[in-house]
Amino acid sequence: MEYNWDIAIRGGTLLTLSERMEIVEDGLIGIKDGLIDFVGRRGDLTGNDIQAQEILDATGCIAMPGLINTHTHLPMVCFRGMADDLPLMDWLNHHIFPAEGRFVNRQMVYDGAMLAMAEMILSGTTTFCDGYFFEDSIAEAAVASGMRAVVSQGFADFPLPDNPAGESIKTLAERFFRRWHSRMPMIIPAFFCHAPYTCSPETLVNVKKIAREAGILYLTHLLETKDETAMIEERYGKEPVPHLHDLGVLDERTVCVHCNWLSAEDLRIFADLGVKVSHNPQSSMKLAAGVAPIPDMLELGIVVGLGTDGCASNNDLDLFKEMDTAAKIHKAVSLNPTVMDAQTVLRMATIEGARVLGLEKSTGSIEVGKQADIIVVDMKKPHLTPLYNCYSHLVYAVSGADVKTSIIGGKIVMRDRKLLTMDVDVVMDKVCRIAGEIKEAKRDID
Amino acid sequence: MEYNWDIAIRGGTLLTLSERMEIVEDGLIGIKDGLIDFVGRRGDLTGNDIQAQEILDATGCIAMPGLINTHTHLPMVCFRGMADDLPLMDWLNHHIFPAEGRFVNRQMVYDGAMLAMAEMILSGTTTFCDGYFFEDSIAEAAVASGMRAVVSQGFADFPLPDNPAGESIKTLAERFFRRWHSRMPMIIPAFFCHAPYTCSPETLVNVKKIAREAGILYLTHLLETKDETAMIEERYGKEPVPHLHDLGVLDERTVCVHCNWLSAEDLRIFADLGVKVSHNPQSSMKLAAGVAPIPDMLELGIVVGLGTDGCASNNDLDLFKEMDTAAKIHKAVSLNPTVMDAQTVLRMATIEGARVLGLEKSTGSIEVGKQADIIVVDMKKPHLTPLYNCYSHLVYAVSGADVKTSIIGGKIVMRDRKLLTMDVDVVMDKVCRIAGEIKEAKRDID
Repeated sequence: MEYNWDIAIRGGTLLTLSERMEIVEDGLIGIKDGLIDFVGRRGDLTGNDIQAQEILDATGCIAMPGLINTHTHLPMVCFRGMADDLPLMDWLNHHIFPAEGRFVNRQMVYDGAMLAMAEMILSGTTTFCDGYFFEDSIAEAAVASGMRAVVSQGFADFPLPDNPAGESIKTLAERFFRRWHSRMPMIIPAFFCHAPYTCSPETLVNVKKIAREAGILYLTHLLETKDETAMIEERYGKEPVPHLHDLGVLDERTVCVHCNWLSAEDLRIFADLGVKVSHNPQSSMKLAAGVAPIPDMLELGIVVGLGTDGCASNNDLDLFKEMDTAAKIHKAVSLNPTVMDAQTVLRMATIEGARVLGLEKSTGSIEVGKQADIIVVDMKKPHLTPLYNCYSHLVYAVSGADVKTSIIGGKIVMRDRKLLTMDVDVVMDKVCRIAGEIKEAKRDID
Repeated sequence: MEYNWDIAIRGGTLLTLSERMEIVEDGLIGIKDGLIDFVGRRGDLTGNDIQAQEILDATGCIAMPGLINTHTHLPMVCFRGMADDLPLMDWLNHHIFPAEGRFVNRQMVYDGAMLAMAEMILSGTTTFCDGYFFEDSIAEAAVASGMRAVVSQGFADFPLPDNPAGESIKTLAERFFRRWHSRMPMIIPAFFCHAPYTCSPETLVNVKKIAREAGILYLTHLLETKDETAMIEERYGKEPVPHLHDLGVLDERTVCVHCNWLSAEDLRIFADLGVKVSHNPQSSMKLAAGVAPIPDMLELGIVVGLGTDGCASNNDLDLFKEMDTAAKIHKAVSLNPTVMDAQTVLRMATIEGARVLGLEKSTGSIEVGKQADIIVVDMKKPHLTPLYNCYSHLVYAVSGADVKTSIIGGKIVMRDRKLLTMDVDVVMDKVCRIAGEIKEAKRDID
């Protein structure tokens, strides 16, 4: 049999992250028309004629699925390090909200998103799920950068900068869906209801109805901080999860972000209904918002993915660092070193993240027929020597800077640490200019 | 006035970490005979004749004191990722102790230490404090790598592989001190009593006596896990800190490592006596050993430095990642986002670390007359853009791979990410060979 590929990746250790978690030494991956055409050992094809337009040598490297960031607000890179170590309400009301009110516009969102995508590609992320204002601009930046993007149109019952005319939910939602659904599988539209405390029951229900009709994902922040329970109870006479459950918005296509304060009863509801969870440990730690009961979720079979959240509360988009923290924080708070083992955490950042986003048939593992979303991690470095166990190193020792090459949908977007889809200096300069304006405005206020 | 320097670092932002925490834009540092000869703005010297054998351009970078790792067991890099996510006693008794029993020898310690030093230099550490077997080999590796090293001869009441003949404490201690004290300020000898549960009161007291006479540092692991309290109480009728206090071994030249389970009363004793603390958050999280009450220590004025601990329980030596975790874990457990602000944490990894080790007069900040232990961090990267606040980025966004150049004692040990004091490929190969033997032995057992 003859193979004629666009790209071949050969040599090194191949982690499939498939159901059987195969690991292939001296691996070979063939990519054709954006899809994975072959997965196996290099030796499997001896005697065959392998043609590939491009051959990537992965000797001394790990080839693995690209990472999946299930929750972020990309343009917040513009506020990275602007305000830290503050009480939550001071941080939000005196720093983040005023900056957003004044500086968020279509161009800022695009420029910020491009910088965020540079950072994500450079640190091994190939798919992300974003929710912010002017989400069309995020989708446009994803098209330009070559990243796979779940872009979610936001809804809330307060005036949004990208909906000054107060268009109806139906108009907004349908226009957004119509504009982007044809760009699947690279751009995947979704809807994001900000939170149970900023969205009325009517909004929550109406958005879910349209999401169901369109067959797309529905996301909401949930129980990031403890006081959300009292807030919702006072307003609606029940706790947040029963509130959402009674509204009928919880199902297997609903992703709840944070979930730091889920009760045992809430967890049971999530498990019964197949509700998905996006876990953002670094952000919740930095904001002192709480630590989600992730080991309990996993015991109940709840699907959990990892996210970085926005850069104002992290302050980076490096999912390798997020994995390290995710593996350690739950050991620390449970005083049990066996929870969140490296393999479990790596699955959260890949195939389980794909399941959270409903993309498990197209990405999150290296299997024939799937989209070719693959990263090559250079393991020949002092901090990754020696190598006993790939999963251990990827979670506990690798950082984003060790990613060498990245392929998304069969397209090489980074080769040997060089971004091929953008001029990164131009992208950085644009955000520096925005930050210059923000600094000036802050000086005027101070 | 004429300046004739060995090295000049010019341009960029200069963080001094001095008492007044001066930050100098477009800075200039002059280095002569291993010491810092000038600190100021580049413009301060207009018209003067600056001669320097080597001029380093720090434009777009931060120049700052090198990081100080107050606790590690360097040769454990050989066991990096060998065993993770296990119950503590299983991990120790079935993995770490057998591997140490079989594979620790003078050569393994030297080879492992060289690899660890490569990793530390590449991630911005310039001074470390180590405790392991065959500590002479660690000191020899430090001489070869050019790092500043506090090397501590270990003591415990069980047979040590580097003391098979059972030499007396006095003989061991005096020989070690005699061998290394003349190499100060690059090599600084110290004594390490393993722990109150492995050292008899007599050992603890005798070692402290010799340390006092020699005027050197005395270290011990303390209250890493909760059950140490019951263990010591049962044996000696009092809790560990009162036990050590009554033995008279706690003073301002004693460093206690971990301290995860100090009581309020213990904290008061530490504050009163000026006992120093080495905080190793990532290791204690990964081992599920506990979270030290660091914010309480800081409120009482206890001096705290950061450490990575050994690589078997971390699994890297990157103090930038350690800072990020240190800043976040205490916010998470206290639910207070204002504790462990970025500046406090950066001080822990620099000048406070120097104070822990008794080296605050020679390193830990950039001030005239101090040893030239300086790193240059490249800030022109997507994940470090934009830049509002240097302290924020260094703690929350920089990782070791962003360190560009490192100078220790006035000698450039890394330039543009290239190590100048060793052949890193040879160093990695040597440890890979040791790991190969360990793998083979494990296969035989399994």
